[in-house]
Amino acid sequence: MSNSLIEITGYAAAFSTTAAFIPQAWLSWRTRDLSGISLPMYALFTVGVALWLVYGIAIACIPVIVANAITLMLSSVVLSLKWLQIRKARAETSG
Amino acid sequence: MSNSLIEITGYAAAFSTTAAFIPQAWLSWRTRDLSGISLPMYALFTVGVALWLVYGIAIACIPVIVANAITLMLSSVVLSLKWLQIRKARAETSG
Repeated sequence: MSNSLIEITGYAAAFSTTAAFIPQAWLSWRTRDLSGISLPMYALFTVGVALWLVYGIAIACIPVIVANAITLMLSSVVLSLKWLQIRKARAETSG
Repeated sequence: MSNSLIEITGYAAAFSTTAAFIPQAWLSWRTRDLSGISLPMYALFTVGVALWLVYGIAIACIPVIVANAITLMLSSVVLSLKWLQIRKARAETSG
């Protein structure tokens, strides 16, 4: 593969894995249907993306910073909604 | 940040964002509760991870290859289950 093709592949990969979280965050926000969403997944993923952001800042790599800042925002939305759903379910059970 | 701390941060980030998909794939497999899972998310994410894998092979970077090969397998499980759920729902509606 030529260097420019490798670079395009990297950018397409970063765009896809970042943009992917837009429809998920929107679906979760709109429907509040979080029962099939895994809390450990979004907890671990959000921590991981935050670490990627720190890594990007440490190596001063703008694409890594931008992609992970956006993903961090979107995965935090899903994580927060999941956490609210669990809290609500617990309140209903105990109440 | 020292170089070794930056490297550890990168590995911890890669480990977290990869391992995160284990509880999600397991939850989806066990419960078949896919209604809150976004099909466009998993379609786009799986394509993105496949592109990261191609990128990793092109730059001959073992950590990128390993992390994305595992994530590709796990996200494909969730994508397949979501696709089956939609196909089943359509068959029930039309039948």
